[in-house]
Amino acid sequence: MAQVRLIEYRDASPEVKAVYDDIMKARGTDWINNFWKALANDPRELKRVWEAVKSVMGPGALDPLVKELVYVAVSATNNCEYCLHSHIAGARKKGMTDAMLMELMAVVALANGNNALASGLRIEVDPQFR
Amino acid sequence: MAQVRLIEYRDASPEVKAVYDDIMKARGTDWINNFWKALANDPRELKRVWEAVKSVMGPGALDPLVKELVYVAVSATNNCEYCLHSHIAGARKKGMTDAMLMELMAVVALANGNNALASGLRIEVDPQFR
Amino acid sequence: MAQVRLIEYRDASPEVKAVYDDIMKARGTDWINNFWKALANDPRELKRVWEAVKSVMGPGALDPLVKELVYVAVSATNNCEYCLHSHIAGARKKGMTDAMLMELMAVVALANGNNALASGLRIEVDPQFR
Amino acid sequence: MAQVRLIEYRDASPEVKAVYDDIMKARGTDWINNFWKALANDPRELKRVWEAVKSVMGPGALDPLVKELVYVAVSATNNCEYCLHSHIAGARKKGMTDAMLMELMAVVALANGNNALASGLRIEVDPQFR
Amino acid sequence: MAQVRLIEYRDASPEVKAVYDDIMKARGTDWINNFWKALANDPRELKRVWEAVKSVMGPGALDPLVKELVYVAVSATNNCEYCLHSHIAGARKKGMTDAMLMELMAVVALANGNNALASGLRIEVDPQFR
Amino acid sequence: MAQVRLIEYRDASPEVKAVYDDIMKARGTDWINNFWKALANDPRELKRVWEAVKSVMGPGALDPLVKELVYVAVSATNNCEYCLHSHIAGARKKGMTDAMLMELMAVVALANGNNALASGLRIEVDPQFR
Repeated sequence: MAQVRLIEYRDASPEVKAVYDDIMKARGTDWINNFWKALANDPRELKRVWEAVKSVMGPGALDPLVKELVYVAVSATNNCEYCLHSHIAGARKKGMTDAMLMELMAVVALANGNNALASGLRIEVDPQFR
Repeated sequence: MAQVRLIEYRDASPEVKAVYDDIMKARGTDWINNFWKALANDPRELKRVWEAVKSVMGPGALDPLVKELVYVAVSATNNCEYCLHSHIAGARKKGMTDAMLMELMAVVALANGNNALASGLRIEVDPQFR
Repeated sequence: MAQVRLIEYRDASPEVKAVYDDIMKARGTDWINNFWKALANDPRELKRVWEAVKSVMGPGALDPLVKELVYVAVSATNNCEYCLHSHIAGARKKGMTDAMLMELMAVVALANGNNALASGLRIEVDPQFR
Repeated sequence: MAQVRLIEYRDASPEVKAVYDDIMKARGTDWINNFWKALANDPRELKRVWEAVKSVMGPGALDPLVKELVYVAVSATNNCEYCLHSHIAGARKKGMTDAMLMELMAVVALANGNNALASGLRIEVDPQFR
Repeated sequence: MAQVRLIEYRDASPEVKAVYDDIMKARGTDWINNFWKALANDPRELKRVWEAVKSVMGPGALDPLVKELVYVAVSATNNCEYCLHSHIAGARKKGMTDAMLMELMAVVALANGNNALASGLRIEVDPQFR
Repeated sequence: MAQVRLIEYRDASPEVKAVYDDIMKARGTDWINNFWKALANDPRELKRVWEAVKSVMGPGALDPLVKELVYVAVSATNNCEYCLHSHIAGARKKGMTDAMLMELMAVVALANGNNALASGLRIEVDPQFR
């Protein structure tokens, strides 16, 4: 059970409803997931995080699917159950196949392993990389 | 200074030299970076990690640049200085621009922040995501 | 299920019972939470950790509520389910409101995000900060 | 050396200069620290992160010094060198003494240690905490 | 529920079956745990990870029980539920007692705590250690 | 430069000197490393952490070298520069060879990689492990 009340649409203030409406419109869905219902306990933070997601995850120099893959990679590294479920779902919606997910996780595992090797052995950065 | 001796090409056993040669050939370079020189203290591990890098980071369902971006994202999350330097260099070589790096880091920051929010508030996974 | 037996009061050695009694007295409760019942498998460690909690979390230059908030912030960053549940409960008992919890998590998310940005881009510390 | 160019005030676009001016005004300083100079490579992200810092770290249900302490606690847990230097400086400016810093770190260490104990032993959350 | 299908022995390709057979033979068991069934969605990665486990966790300069203890310590630090369950089971099979597990976790907690202290206070490495 | 003054023996209070003396006696050395000099800003915490180190790292169900290896493994996972330097030195003093260090890091890398795989794919714990 979440540590704060999940605020349903029917119980939301107009300020929160406006964000909920924008989320559903942007995603083409008719429901709000729990992450936003929890954040709605602080309407300013709800709005801020939603605006950040729209700004950061939208198209740009990187395409939105690549951004979802990166988001999943970070969430796997941090072992965030909620974010893994929601963003793997999001990535699938944008076209991620099982084969892509498996390769993604192989890269994530390799990087986590090699990060520990390089940090643990205190290997110095080669001047060529600086 | 690294915690183990860095093994230079001229001092390497034939077994290690064979891996070094394969690394330089695969990368089209004429030098070996410190990561491999440190691993060479355990030739079997050197070979294993290099084979893993070739297998995991090569083309497949995801393209090699996307894999480098994911590798950088994990290394930023883990704050691995060596891996950031070497894999940002690797990503640039494969076409990453400054604009792409900035967007990548914005996604990494957003994901790390939202991971903490979702985990900290113990938000339950919506049945729709399962 | 925990990886070790949880030692109930009635099954505890006198040494463990003494710590349990001190915990209940300090907290004004009549039950022992699972964390201590697990640690009781190593009575010396049980006593050491409990003495540390009393020493570190008590009043001093920082007040106990601030210390609970910091404890929760670390537990959110590490995604420790048990510690989040027990220390959010502890913080509420010391006066933390929902509004405070939401603001706390906003700071935790911001810091986790900006940590990744600063580490990932390898930004140098300004001489003015040293 | 940072992985992107640090954009100095004199070289900044009007959009970036406006954020820089707001930062210096809010802080009562006449210089910009490297974190912002690096973010300025992505002016939209620069503005977004600065607005987030203003919104999240300002007064509210928690006072700004407590927020700085929490920020430092997260940065210590993530071992972010840049953020530790900049936010310990920020906390001192808001009144943190050496005694407060030492107590803060004692709580951070205790929480990191106990997080590992609770997670490692897979201790179940007591029903009383839910 | 795992994010990919778990591939049962009867549904596996000959390539996957060969790895499954080798796992059961090496462990003297007649079943395959979920970790491998998930990896089997990428047969090359399945084989690579299994070969890595055999190579790294086998006898050498360190004995296999010590290696399992180290694996558990890392998994506790990362809070990996699956790995804790599977490798604590593995360590018990190799001789780990409850007393050893409790001492292991005490070291893990101490190290996690002191890591945060040393990193958070930015303590410089003594020249004697370099 | 550390974030607090390093307290030298000649400047220490009798309370701190007593701990310093005990550290040097226990280790058979005639100098104090920076970790303790920083902690000495909070004499009670200094004493507490030193007593913890003596209690946890001493002989027991696990031998002191194994404990040092575990400490190094955690420090590599957390990328704690100070702790890696001091505890790799400590482990070498207790008999760790280069071959043992290389194998230790191979286990650490494997575990960090597999932790990310198991967490990222949300693989369920097999009933046999519970």
